[in-house]
Amino acid sequence: MSKGTLFLIPCTIGSSPELVLPSSVFEVVNQIDFYVVENLRSARRFLSSIKISTKIDDLTFYELGKHTQESDIPSFLNPALEGKNIGLISEAGLPAVADPGGKLVAIAHGRGITVKPLTGPSSLMLALMSSGFNGQNFRFRGYIPKERGDRISFLKDMETEATKRGVSQIFMDTPFRNDHVLEDCILHLSPKTFLNISADITLQTELIKTMPVEQWKTQKPPLKKRPTVFIIGRPEYLY
Amino acid sequence: MSKGTLFLIPCTIGSSPELVLPSSVFEVVNQIDFYVVENLRSARRFLSSIKISTKIDDLTFYELGKHTQESDIPSFLNPALEGKNIGLISEAGLPAVADPGGKLVAIAHGRGITVKPLTGPSSLMLALMSSGFNGQNFRFRGYIPKERGDRISFLKDMETEATKRGVSQIFMDTPFRNDHVLEDCILHLSPKTFLNISADITLQTELIKTMPVEQWKTQKPPLKKRPTVFIIGRPEYLY
Repeated sequence: MSKGTLFLIPCTIGSSPELVLPSSVFEVVNQIDFYVVENLRSARRFLSSIKISTKIDDLTFYELGKHTQESDIPSFLNPALEGKNIGLISEAGLPAVADPGGKLVAIAHGRGITVKPLTGPSSLMLALMSSGFNGQNFRFRGYIPKERGDRISFLKDMETEATKRGVSQIFMDTPFRNDHVLEDCILHLSPKTFLNISADITLQTELIKTMPVEQWKTQKPPLKKRPTVFIIGRPEYLY
Repeated sequence: MSKGTLFLIPCTIGSSPELVLPSSVFEVVNQIDFYVVENLRSARRFLSSIKISTKIDDLTFYELGKHTQESDIPSFLNPALEGKNIGLISEAGLPAVADPGGKLVAIAHGRGITVKPLTGPSSLMLALMSSGFNGQNFRFRGYIPKERGDRISFLKDMETEATKRGVSQIFMDTPFRNDHVLEDCILHLSPKTFLNISADITLQTELIKTMPVEQWKTQKPPLKKRPTVFIIGRPEYLY
């Protein structure tokens, strides 16, 4: 019996599905009965929003979140070993990037299960392409540390890699701390260092702007609770 | 007069537009008469393939490629200063990442022109999400050096950053040299180091696989002329 495929299914990042998902995503979900999801409730809501033809109660869901026992994960792939396709869905955007889904993908490779990614919104890439910074050498750093001292040296380290070595530095924080991140950038980065802020990407309230830190100082946008990507970089062209 | 918007318009990466582009892309291109494109011929072909309603001969194109005079670029934004929307299109995938389009975006920020990215396929992200590697800390390194010695130390440097520091390392080469890249990985990386190869992403012939180098050694796929993304990384789960 041939094995099923593990489809990596992108989710929206706040906006309506038509804005960010190609029609192939809508077609694929109609052929899948087994899902591994980061959060059960939001995955069901997402599948309803894209109006799949299968009744949601007829689908099987395995939850792969922060609290999942690591030893349970391999069994989530059993349907694929039995020839069924599986869909992996995270809370927002692309699955298996900065979420526990990566573990499932790693196991799939070990078991010879085909992994098939579908195109969808990546807040990191939408922010990077909009920044005007070096897109030939960039780094995603994940979440900025919470502790003050670590945070400051993290910012300084990124600034050096960005301005001296030209590696664009992408990072984020949990949305309720975003205003503090901007404040820390203003306090601890050089006034001439360039910072891109991309908030509410793909939403009506989208804000995307690249300016030197000294300009952000006098034009601070409210960022609290708005999903935001920050990038420190060197502009590709100095206007 | 309010300024026009610079739309960052994704292109396909080989497959048909419906597979990788959301319907919003089709809607936006029908409202744009001015384009800045990496390559005139492929941009016209792309716009024909997505069946825009405007006659292609009625559109205005500015070419922003390797041979464009840097001093000419700012003028490409004049239509936006006069209130018209502009579309930026690169040869494949997302514009302004690893192509000259980033310069235009940087100038747009300097002139207060709104930059609006649209979702589309990024071979880098499709490969990364499919790799099973750390998606919380990764780096895109661009193209691997051509010169032998530089190439080997580049590979070793990436291997260290990936295996010791857990930073997934994404890189590529021009398609006709891909077989040599794989050969170099086999010769110069540790047999236990994990390598993801993602070739022909979104095409019928798509190959996406993560294995230790020692396994690639005995299962070398032909990669010549196939667009390929390579990633050296540490799997999120060791099966």
